[in-house]
Amino acid sequence: MNMYDVILKKRNGGELSTNEINYVVEGYVKGEIPDYQMSAFLMAVYFQKMNKRETVDLTMAMAHSGAMLDLSNINGVTVDKHSTGGVGDKTTLVVGPMITAAGGKLAKMSGRGLGHTGGTIDKLESIPGFKTDLSIEEFIDNVNKYGMAVAGQTSNLDPADKMIYALRDVTATVDSTALIASSIMSKKLASGTEKIVLDIKTGSGAFMKTEKEARELAELMVGIGKDAGRKTVAVISKMDQPLGRAVGNSLEVKEAIESLKGNGPDDLMELCYTLGANMLVMAGISKYIAEAKDRLEMTIRDGSALEIFRSVVKAQGGDTGVINDYSVLGEAAEIYQVKAKKSGYVSKINAKEIGMCSMLLGGGRKEKNDNIDFVVGIYILKKIGDYVEENDVIAEIHSESKESAKAIEDRILASYEFSAEKIERGSVIIDTIV
Amino acid sequence: MNMYDVILKKRNGGELSTNEINYVVEGYVKGEIPDYQMSAFLMAVYFQKMNKRETVDLTMAMAHSGAMLDLSNINGVTVDKHSTGGVGDKTTLVVGPMITAAGGKLAKMSGRGLGHTGGTIDKLESIPGFKTDLSIEEFIDNVNKYGMAVAGQTSNLDPADKMIYALRDVTATVDSTALIASSIMSKKLASGTEKIVLDIKTGSGAFMKTEKEARELAELMVGIGKDAGRKTVAVISKMDQPLGRAVGNSLEVKEAIESLKGNGPDDLMELCYTLGANMLVMAGISKYIAEAKDRLEMTIRDGSALEIFRSVVKAQGGDTGVINDYSVLGEAAEIYQVKAKKSGYVSKINAKEIGMCSMLLGGGRKEKNDNIDFVVGIYILKKIGDYVEENDVIAEIHSESKESAKAIEDRILASYEFSAEKIERGSVIIDTIV
Repeated sequence: MNMYDVILKKRNGGELSTNEINYVVEGYVKGEIPDYQMSAFLMAVYFQKMNKRETVDLTMAMAHSGAMLDLSNINGVTVDKHSTGGVGDKTTLVVGPMITAAGGKLAKMSGRGLGHTGGTIDKLESIPGFKTDLSIEEFIDNVNKYGMAVAGQTSNLDPADKMIYALRDVTATVDSTALIASSIMSKKLASGTEKIVLDIKTGSGAFMKTEKEARELAELMVGIGKDAGRKTVAVISKMDQPLGRAVGNSLEVKEAIESLKGNGPDDLMELCYTLGANMLVMAGISKYIAEAKDRLEMTIRDGSALEIFRSVVKAQGGDTGVINDYSVLGEAAEIYQVKAKKSGYVSKINAKEIGMCSMLLGGGRKEKNDNIDFVVGIYILKKIGDYVEENDVIAEIHSESKESAKAIEDRILASYEFSAEKIERGSVIIDTIV
Repeated sequence: MNMYDVILKKRNGGELSTNEINYVVEGYVKGEIPDYQMSAFLMAVYFQKMNKRETVDLTMAMAHSGAMLDLSNINGVTVDKHSTGGVGDKTTLVVGPMITAAGGKLAKMSGRGLGHTGGTIDKLESIPGFKTDLSIEEFIDNVNKYGMAVAGQTSNLDPADKMIYALRDVTATVDSTALIASSIMSKKLASGTEKIVLDIKTGSGAFMKTEKEARELAELMVGIGKDAGRKTVAVISKMDQPLGRAVGNSLEVKEAIESLKGNGPDDLMELCYTLGANMLVMAGISKYIAEAKDRLEMTIRDGSALEIFRSVVKAQGGDTGVINDYSVLGEAAEIYQVKAKKSGYVSKINAKEIGMCSMLLGGGRKEKNDNIDFVVGIYILKKIGDYVEENDVIAEIHSESKESAKAIEDRILASYEFSAEKIERGSVIIDTIV
């Protein structure tokens, strides 16, 4: 077998055999297949796609490219949750403590933010002292003790994904359904997850711009999960505006804590209840979604979810003072008010643009090794459906200087669209794919 | 500007600006754009194509990536001839001396063979002593003295093409019309050619499998030539069987010398007269194609073309004894007869397969740095339209051992197709694009 022939076959629209796919992944990880052949291959996959069988094979080959984590030492049923990435998505910080308080376990390996999307690891690290580089032993131990732990991906899991993702990221081959699905699912398989709830985002702030693409990806990933013997459910949710109001690491931590205190924004809470309820049903803790949702609401009302959050922060070295005093997180030097230039009902907010603005302030990464300024970000005051008068404050820019705020003011304004007629916001949930 | 955005734009079907194309070529030659981005870009170009404007810009950028040869010190009008590559194509060795004898000048920079196609430089080097690594001064001097010189491409011309071709060759991005056209034309522009006759091959042994593709390439290259201020004519010719009878370096030299002596195979001679006549008309030596053909036929009849060949061999250090004594070229240890397994009219010969067989014998290169065995090859006795009885010898394998001949015998046999009905061969010329 040689790589040239495999590239040619895929380029010409052929279906690759399991052997061919294994050859590509193994050869690339071993360094026998050079980057320039792999990137040509990935571009061919972008154009010619992969069918479900090929995508399953690719996922399996990637998952087995490194160590496979064994979570069997965890007592109780762990359920994982994974989002395809969005803007203002602090769901893990809210749903994790909720399902844990309801009797579930969350052993969550998470990633860092890149481009306009944030990452759970970065958000948690905005809490002073919070440590995410847990050893496998600490990780499993924490889940057993506190019901929940969040750690950065350990470096020996799924090296194929790390290598392939780094290459896709610089060769414009990220937004391929087969490559996205195999990247996410291979990491999940390698990190030992038995049951997975996927949060597939669609809209202006998501990789999947249309509902059709999101459904395709959801069905593909659920199928891969099943083929791999891991029960998988996918929730398709809207990312047509930032989720909640806070975009930026410490702003989002604040909003997550407020949510655990019962003051969460509607869209974020609706998503958390839906994802969490599916997780509880999957774990066998609840029998029905409605019952599971009631159970989750109780964990907010009785403060038990907040207590789980506190114990996780403590267990991972973070300053638990944050829960009652947000000044622990620090604050941006400038809070700049963005005022509407016209009046009307907010009809659209370009979530990707808001994410990009937060990144430009220093709250995200343009390149993988960029440092993050935790305190900067955007706080969205007016969301879709809200009525706005000219000169009303629609958003706050939290920045290190007035100049950096002014530099993005026009982009924030341009992200908003207004309508003369009333706009119904509707549910953040589009569908659940089982 | 950055390469990621250029890849993305092309991947999404956008038209690249002149600046973007210059950025890609310059950045790649300087080493600022890595191979893995370039190969993803080339694959995107394969799928999304380039329009004429983009292809012209790419050609210009490549041509100017290194030194530009100045042929103005040559007295008289030089006309170049370039073939897109085929099997048994010894046209340059025949048409060069013919047009030179008729008063033209040929300053020919030529390439080596790769894969199933041969290269003029390799063929000439099968003549003992023949030297193709001329300095620019020797090259121009020889053209002035003898009317013709053939040299390998000097290394400082069109480095972009060398780098891009090497990458295309291993990433399955060779057969893109825009990339083929820009590769050929940029070399021609850089090597100072003012007038170009292109021989665009189509059929089983050519890169362009269909007449439609060949026409597209021909029209594109003629257009590029015109835009670059170089008069360009393209002849589309059949490569649906090997040209002439000899395939293999010294076998082809023998056939070329025989052709100059008046004993050339019909298809080869027809092509040489057509290409040569276009060259003479372009050079202003003849006014009409018919007149030019008469003139060329005369150079064979009066032996003047053969004399030019002799003087070129001498000037470039080769043993002129070859002209009267082919044993100077050496001979293969084994001449193995391939006998027909059925009878009928030959209806097809897979030229690429014949070329591959010659390569496998050692007569061509699988990889760029492979050594060549000059004396091996295939001699085709029965061509399309010939009637064959079972057990007739249809081809000879010239090899270093009986074993290596036997190893390819079945592939040679399988390259032939037979028909019960009489087959008309027809002309080797399909069309001329001006």
